[in-house]
Amino acid sequence: MATLNDIAKRLGISKGTVSKALNQAPDVSETLRKTVLETAIEMGYTQKRLKKDESKKLCIFIENMNFESPNHFGYDLVMGFKKMAEPEGYTVDLLPITADFQKKTSYDIFMLENGYLGAFILGFTLNDPWMVDFETTCMPTVLYDNYIKDNPHTAYVGVDNPEGFDMAISYLKSQGHQKIGYLSGALGSQINRHRYKAFFSAMSRNHLKADQTLVACTYHVSDCTGTYLPKILEKGVTAILCSHDTLAQAVMVACQERGLSIPTDISIIGFDDIPLCAYTNPPLTTIRQDRPELGKCGYYALNSLMNQVNISTLLLHARLILRDSSGPVPQ
Amino acid sequence: MATLNDIAKRLGISKGTVSKALNQAPDVSETLRKTVLETAIEMGYTQKRLKKDESKKLCIFIENMNFESPNHFGYDLVMGFKKMAEPEGYTVDLLPITADFQKKTSYDIFMLENGYLGAFILGFTLNDPWMVDFETTCMPTVLYDNYIKDNPHTAYVGVDNPEGFDMAISYLKSQGHQKIGYLSGALGSQINRHRYKAFFSAMSRNHLKADQTLVACTYHVSDCTGTYLPKILEKGVTAILCSHDTLAQAVMVACQERGLSIPTDISIIGFDDIPLCAYTNPPLTTIRQDRPELGKCGYYALNSLMNQVNISTLLLHARLILRDSSGPVPQ
Repeated sequence: MATLNDIAKRLGISKGTVSKALNQAPDVSETLRKTVLETAIEMGYTQKRLKKDESKKLCIFIENMNFESPNHFGYDLVMGFKKMAEPEGYTVDLLPITADFQKKTSYDIFMLENGYLGAFILGFTLNDPWMVDFETTCMPTVLYDNYIKDNPHTAYVGVDNPEGFDMAISYLKSQGHQKIGYLSGALGSQINRHRYKAFFSAMSRNHLKADQTLVACTYHVSDCTGTYLPKILEKGVTAILCSHDTLAQAVMVACQERGLSIPTDISIIGFDDIPLCAYTNPPLTTIRQDRPELGKCGYYALNSLMNQVNISTLLLHARLILRDSSGPVPQ
Repeated sequence: MATLNDIAKRLGISKGTVSKALNQAPDVSETLRKTVLETAIEMGYTQKRLKKDESKKLCIFIENMNFESPNHFGYDLVMGFKKMAEPEGYTVDLLPITADFQKKTSYDIFMLENGYLGAFILGFTLNDPWMVDFETTCMPTVLYDNYIKDNPHTAYVGVDNPEGFDMAISYLKSQGHQKIGYLSGALGSQINRHRYKAFFSAMSRNHLKADQTLVACTYHVSDCTGTYLPKILEKGVTAILCSHDTLAQAVMVACQERGLSIPTDISIIGFDDIPLCAYTNPPLTTIRQDRPELGKCGYYALNSLMNQVNISTLLLHARLILRDSSGPVPQ
């Protein structure tokens, strides 16, 4: 890794000035400060020397995900991470973030200016501006449900999606289902792409025909329930898998509005096991991601990257949680 | 987890007798001891109470892999694991094992009888008898380069093969190569299957045509160099990827015996970065698996499983190590 001396040499300034610039001393001009920062990043300098009264700082960036209370999806992810990091002396800042903010400041500059040693990224989509920054960053960076190719400083943490779909499809097959539909969120997120692929693989591994006309991906839940659901029901599906529990919940309600009884007429299975699933009507069968464990794994992967153990991927086992929204194929 | 009491109740014997049987006391008959052991395993009992003078014991089972000295492939895997486990108070036993031994004793019984809390499995093939035992074991078990489906007590540790192949193929493409061959060990091992698939995916992602007639898989290296290599050379390949460095090394020698100069006439790339690669003639370009890091990850995954964090998959980043066996496409 580059040192303060390396940066000073490259720019032809003193080491003291580099240090001042990195620490935002008031007697360094804004232009010079930017030049120093950008050179530092270009040279792979990732770590400011900590002042004695500063603690070691990590950051969780969160987007598209609620996390404030225990019944929110992100809550356990954040808590799992903190429970591992804080006993080891880290301060963890939780920063909700927007695409607009990402456009204004590059990821590396933000991390360096704020003295973060690494970050855990939650809820980003492929359209987030920082997704490009992650391809080249030297900052230890762990992404939940996003995989960055060829950058040894980034790791992907998530659930074993193929295993989860396998469990759900082989369970449905054991209940006599053959015509199985799949409704998914838009393919602009990596996790939706993974699951889309996992659905087709699981059908094939279970020797079932995956019919493209029984599959639909949409951004708006209302398109899904209003347009695609009626179409695939008409084609005679007896079970529907959904890429996310919230979608499955909307599909259940739409089925019931059309006079269908669940699971007598149709089986519905979700993915994630959000806290709500146990309380829907009927309670939703789903594939569980263990969120506190994922948060813990997020910290472990980050800690590994910070110690030059270049983890690429860390997946947790999936688990099929059987509730009342699924059952035998209708006679 | 089942307790001694649960086992005693199921068998209608006293808790003391269960304990004696598990601890191989001489006043318990061999038949009763076996019954107790099998019931314990059936009920998911995985841990004998440790005597005060016993340390916490883990086991590495190793097969098809040399490990005795630092220039052997398995050495760093074992050392990486031990370096993590021993400071945390574990004794690590290293047991070379054969298929015959596995046929005689089931995995669970061996682990329980010997008081192991978990195991790291190196070098097993799909034909190893214990591979079936791993599907249902409740013992925390981490496998290097083998994935067990649907068992939350097992984890797979390895390198990110698709990333490695992507790096190699996109490098070859940047050097002007289009006709790229692939020579692989037999598909009786999971890792060879993964890499076989990864080769085709990487070709497709790099918009190159993967020609089935330029690909061959064999158990015997001599078949590969004697039969398949001449065939694919005739078809005009300008670069060959090999599933393992040892195979790549044999392919290099065979090419040279046919009067070809490496890399002027043909580029050869291996996989693994075994210690020998730097000293072949010419030194071999290869995709690195960082073995000490893999050993460390093996311990981490095992420690997670022992703490009910059900890791499924833990992959390390691959790295392309450029040496002299590869270069621009011949004019």
